[in-house]
Amino acid sequence: MKNLLIAQSGGPTAAINASLAGVMEAALISARVDGIYGAVNGIQGVFEEKIIDLKEAVKSAMDIELLCQTPSSALGSCRFILKPWKEQEGQYEEFIRIMRKYSISYFIYIGGNDSMDTVYKLSEYCREKQIEDIMVAGVPKTIDNDLAETDHCPGFGSAAKYIATTFAELERDISVYPVPAITIVEVMGRNAGWLTAASALSRINGGAGPELIYLCEHVFGKEKFLSDVKEAMERKKALLIAVSEGLKDRNGKYISEEAQSDMADAFGHKYISGTGRILESLIREKIGCKVRSVELNLMQRCAAHVASDTDLKEARMLGGKALQCAVEGKNGVMASIRRLGSNPYAVEYTSVPVGRVANREKKVPAEMIHENGHDITDEMMQYLLPLIQGEANVMYVNGIPSHIII
Amino acid sequence: MKNLLIAQSGGPTAAINASLAGVMEAALISARVDGIYGAVNGIQGVFEEKIIDLKEAVKSAMDIELLCQTPSSALGSCRFILKPWKEQEGQYEEFIRIMRKYSISYFIYIGGNDSMDTVYKLSEYCREKQIEDIMVAGVPKTIDNDLAETDHCPGFGSAAKYIATTFAELERDISVYPVPAITIVEVMGRNAGWLTAASALSRINGGAGPELIYLCEHVFGKEKFLSDVKEAMERKKALLIAVSEGLKDRNGKYISEEAQSDMADAFGHKYISGTGRILESLIREKIGCKVRSVELNLMQRCAAHVASDTDLKEARMLGGKALQCAVEGKNGVMASIRRLGSNPYAVEYTSVPVGRVANREKKVPAEMIHENGHDITDEMMQYLLPLIQGEANVMYVNGIPSHIII
Repeated sequence: MKNLLIAQSGGPTAAINASLAGVMEAALISARVDGIYGAVNGIQGVFEEKIIDLKEAVKSAMDIELLCQTPSSALGSCRFILKPWKEQEGQYEEFIRIMRKYSISYFIYIGGNDSMDTVYKLSEYCREKQIEDIMVAGVPKTIDNDLAETDHCPGFGSAAKYIATTFAELERDISVYPVPAITIVEVMGRNAGWLTAASALSRINGGAGPELIYLCEHVFGKEKFLSDVKEAMERKKALLIAVSEGLKDRNGKYISEEAQSDMADAFGHKYISGTGRILESLIREKIGCKVRSVELNLMQRCAAHVASDTDLKEARMLGGKALQCAVEGKNGVMASIRRLGSNPYAVEYTSVPVGRVANREKKVPAEMIHENGHDITDEMMQYLLPLIQGEANVMYVNGIPSHIII
Repeated sequence: MKNLLIAQSGGPTAAINASLAGVMEAALISARVDGIYGAVNGIQGVFEEKIIDLKEAVKSAMDIELLCQTPSSALGSCRFILKPWKEQEGQYEEFIRIMRKYSISYFIYIGGNDSMDTVYKLSEYCREKQIEDIMVAGVPKTIDNDLAETDHCPGFGSAAKYIATTFAELERDISVYPVPAITIVEVMGRNAGWLTAASALSRINGGAGPELIYLCEHVFGKEKFLSDVKEAMERKKALLIAVSEGLKDRNGKYISEEAQSDMADAFGHKYISGTGRILESLIREKIGCKVRSVELNLMQRCAAHVASDTDLKEARMLGGKALQCAVEGKNGVMASIRRLGSNPYAVEYTSVPVGRVANREKKVPAEMIHENGHDITDEMMQYLLPLIQGEANVMYVNGIPSHIII
């Protein structure tokens, strides 16, 4: 018996279940995989033996399609950091015991940075202990697009498409009144500005898009911001501004930290406010025009109804690729996308040693940020554009998208 | 020459341009309409003579389709309340002068409460002055669904579909971690809870939907809220809670007012916080579990990419109906929807004297709110469900929905 165990971890995305589907599909047609199991709540669920039969939970080709259009981890997630095995060998022994108990030969973990760290540690442990019949492999997943060693991450393209679509719609929304008004839209990304950059995609069909775009990789100065805004107001009445939640000042301090230390709510509690709200207050005080801030919040990571078809298909392929690697005896790899070209767009699916991925962050490089500090470059646009192409053919039932609930 | 002038007003919706398209289509096939003009920025644009030739701006059948999928008022909007003619007759004379100048026989105004008040006042003025060759008619529009004398309002169904879809997605998002967590989602509606009620539609395919739903028509008590939450936490770990932005206490004071009076931001400014954030703080203080609040904000009124096809088609029909009324010599009417049945759903398009609409608000009736005070009834579900049926066949270009910009 060579069974497969799959788990998911990290924050939700619209594409993480497409990767799960991809692993399953590849396993279903492989002669070298018998049972297909899922661990509920990631690696934590492995340790708790919350293990289900995925062939029972996802029975048909239709179920697999539903899985692909269901946002967020169908198998649940966890926040669980494995300590190095030398500090906590018992936990690693427990992992191996559980693998043996369920005859698991392949463990595929779909997730972001922390999950790739887990893949790395488990695979290294197997290597150290010369356990050669358990293969551990990873599938990248994060809306933040901050994983190293892959051109981009599944989940990012769908979030980018949601953001581009939403900015295009917001531009229409805020442009109706003939009065000066500023709308600040806060986009996820504490340390990487890829998602905020995606707001510029709203310009692709002739829209103006955000007048100003601030990525968290670029030092944020309030005086510069205010002068940018004043200058933009001379050109245009209704301004749309995109900001990363993780904007930082020259000392590396998050702009949002200000509020957290200075502000208390009606109950005397410190108020955790966002970057957008801080900047909203700043404009209200220093410029005094109509201003509001909008957070794209959880919607940007779970809006599967407007998922990028390119993203879902790639997520599925990477799931299959990881399974393929494991079956071929590659331990400690992450399935990865290599871009061959942007126009026409072409990629190949490959794998990389997961040790090169774990605990690194891929930030937006300086050459993709406009030298004016409040926009992106054409190079970034070329990078982003292919990732949002194609619309998922979402099945609606009773007026809302149909989801599978495992 | 019998020309037509169309204008739009009030807050954006995903369907207001479908009504504009409907007026245009009916006019294009009518032998009694010559030129088709649009006023930019509503009645204010009429007075400023910001008048454009709509046959030039919207040239083809394809342009009309694009118009239908473009959110927010393509002709812009305004905030402009007409005083009674006896107080400001000059303005009314100016209106007539402009109508004469452009040979306008029909003025169609698409909007909400204030716009219907404008339609009423202008039509009454014509009646008083025995001006019988200018017909003024209204087309209802509001995401709030609070206009009287129509079963529901164009724009509401699309916002409801966005809300239902988003709650279904948020439920998937918040359910992944095996820890107690509360997510409060604030939905638009200062005085009418129709949109908040639409969150319950996320249950239609077997999802749990929001565990608790609070509409602004029902007196909101914090103690009751906290006990509802604690009780719900015994049943379920991850709670989704829907609240109207306009929740009020027993004295009629908005819950959100608390923060506005007690809270100051980092710049010493009073902080205008939302109901969701207030309740987030309350739970953090009194219950102490993980809690976050999400505002659906502007997205709920402009998310045309997930518009209800039923809504768009009805919006278009009502535009046509208003034009038809005007051409038939009906002055001072609003096109209206009468529901003939919910299952199967059937409506007829009619017209009502706009004086019965202006300055009234249609709130959620008590029988549509569950007696427990934190849910809706089956009757509400039957009312809402037909309105979100069908998906608009949105045309995407370069990965985002294509919009027409007039």
